[in-house]
Amino acid sequence: MSFEIAIGANIRKSPYFDATVDDGVRSFSVYNHMYMPGHFGDPMAEYDRLLNGVVMWDVAGERQVQLSGPDAGRLAQYLTPRDLRNTKVGQGRYVPLCDAQGRVLNDPVLLKLSDTRYWLSVADSDVQLWAAGIAQGRGWDVEVSEPDVSPLAVQGPLAAQVIAALFGDWVHDLRYFWFRETELDGIPLVLARSGWSKQGGYELYLQDAAQGRALWDKVKKAGQPWGIGPGAPNDIERIESGLLSYGADFRLQTRPATPFELGLGKLVSLDGHDFVGRAALQRLSLTPPTRRWTGFFILADAPVAQSHPVQVLCQDQPVGYLSEMVLSPRLTRWIGVGMIQTDLPPDAALSVTLPSGQHAVQTTALPFI
Amino acid sequence: MSFEIAIGANIRKSPYFDATVDDGVRSFSVYNHMYMPGHFGDPMAEYDRLLNGVVMWDVAGERQVQLSGPDAGRLAQYLTPRDLRNTKVGQGRYVPLCDAQGRVLNDPVLLKLSDTRYWLSVADSDVQLWAAGIAQGRGWDVEVSEPDVSPLAVQGPLAAQVIAALFGDWVHDLRYFWFRETELDGIPLVLARSGWSKQGGYELYLQDAAQGRALWDKVKKAGQPWGIGPGAPNDIERIESGLLSYGADFRLQTRPATPFELGLGKLVSLDGHDFVGRAALQRLSLTPPTRRWTGFFILADAPVAQSHPVQVLCQDQPVGYLSEMVLSPRLTRWIGVGMIQTDLPPDAALSVTLPSGQHAVQTTALPFI
Repeated sequence: MSFEIAIGANIRKSPYFDATVDDGVRSFSVYNHMYMPGHFGDPMAEYDRLLNGVVMWDVAGERQVQLSGPDAGRLAQYLTPRDLRNTKVGQGRYVPLCDAQGRVLNDPVLLKLSDTRYWLSVADSDVQLWAAGIAQGRGWDVEVSEPDVSPLAVQGPLAAQVIAALFGDWVHDLRYFWFRETELDGIPLVLARSGWSKQGGYELYLQDAAQGRALWDKVKKAGQPWGIGPGAPNDIERIESGLLSYGADFRLQTRPATPFELGLGKLVSLDGHDFVGRAALQRLSLTPPTRRWTGFFILADAPVAQSHPVQVLCQDQPVGYLSEMVLSPRLTRWIGVGMIQTDLPPDAALSVTLPSGQHAVQTTALPFI
Repeated sequence: MSFEIAIGANIRKSPYFDATVDDGVRSFSVYNHMYMPGHFGDPMAEYDRLLNGVVMWDVAGERQVQLSGPDAGRLAQYLTPRDLRNTKVGQGRYVPLCDAQGRVLNDPVLLKLSDTRYWLSVADSDVQLWAAGIAQGRGWDVEVSEPDVSPLAVQGPLAAQVIAALFGDWVHDLRYFWFRETELDGIPLVLARSGWSKQGGYELYLQDAAQGRALWDKVKKAGQPWGIGPGAPNDIERIESGLLSYGADFRLQTRPATPFELGLGKLVSLDGHDFVGRAALQRLSLTPPTRRWTGFFILADAPVAQSHPVQVLCQDQPVGYLSEMVLSPRLTRWIGVGMIQTDLPPDAALSVTLPSGQHAVQTTALPFI
């Protein structure tokens, strides 16, 4: 199945949109109401560069939600079960956000820019409306807004060399998830050591949309000695690495999940601050979760999934779901991620029914690699 | 420019997705994190059917936000500047929602199902998070959720005959924007006289996603005597008719607009209830808005817009924007909608700069037709 995407006025274009078109983007998805590249015509070359070289991704769809004002820190802390007391200015934290029932509604990275200014670098849901609604309801003195910020990711084992060529050797000392406000030939940005892969890299949070093309071109040029190429967040690598994908693996409206079910229980701090969903998570913490996020091997040569998620069956009863599956080039077998009940016997025979037939599956610990 | 859309796990499929694929859908957009058909290969035939016959649209992307519980009515009223006191069970109302600064963040249709249950049939932003955030912040006793509801629109001058063939002659007596809970051969749904066109028609709010194909097929079969065909919300007709499109014409993050600027001032009730944004709108109501939503004629034979919106200039100064433009088959000229400053002299020379050149434009009252 192959369809065109309607390029219209109601979905936003990234500041890098024109540059990605010139560089041969072939497919788009939509993330936070913004076009985001899917691939540039040779997905396996993009995977290979991510694993062995360096790639650049337009991830402007990771929009920022800015909390600023006297109550910014209070709101940031109230939005997440994670204890933020020790978070320093210049530090990023992975912060699942829960609703009042303890269900994760987004899993952003929080960037603490100052004691009164934070960004939430969000997955695909309107966290701005959530945060602004909470602030309005509570009457807190905090402005919730979307600043002019558009991340560009540089990922892969050679990413550090490209970034050092652009910014200097200090970037090697930046710790994982930490960031610094800086500039590149006058282009204002925040440089963070982060990114949605396990191959290492940086994210350049461009702070002036008008300079998207300029930044794209500078990174592209600086990366040429290391064979940089354009790409996009990579589903194969993220499944091999066991990275969660809000929307694909779980979503508040369709497949709600708690931090405990998603393996994020260690981020839930119940003995300190107040936060949305605290009572629900306190109650849920008393008993082990009935489901857990897991890896799957699909025992088939060429399974075909027409649609995701796929139910996982045990003796014809649904006991979980496979949220996405791929052929792993490194493992040379079909793997996936999803959710499974915790009360199954260790030798339970599991299967999925696909257009290509009924295939046995086995759970396995994450990450795969 | 033509690109593929990535069909993946992170964007939802509508209950009608497979049926639209079988019926030849050629392009998709994404609306509320769900694939929504763009066209089926012959956009002009779809426009013609909407104007002169009957079309069916998968608009499941118009998700519902359900407010239920003792404080449901209180929350519904608090979310909109419109006075809802006289709204009856079975009645729909167009209700712009504003943030604390009085900027419209969505413009849904509210359906009052009972005194303690409401749906907001939303445009493209996560109103569920907004409403849940407000309710959480206020501590009100109301559940905010997404029910299993997926609208299918039947639009056009012959729509009433198709719907009457399916449901009976009572549908002719349903007033505009009113609805009734009913069923079709056991398929539970809400039938409303509404839809995002000015050609008349109905929306079938399917209440069981598993029966999407069944409902699609029944409507398709019943519509055959009237030449029904598949289509999608139509940009040409909506511009001719002057219908607002959240996301295309304005968006909280990119081009915020107040109800007064959008010509919705008559829906703002300042002498009664409390609501989000009341203080801001009260203040704004004291002076005429400095911009207004308007129609535009583009005085060119074949203008080419590479991207929307397009700045409108007066003596080289930006004085507004054109959010979208189309060639109107009925007017046989290029028309658009957008925003313009209110302080320009009546004879101000306006223009837009497009890849096809600099073209004069003229404002004109809406609707065009």
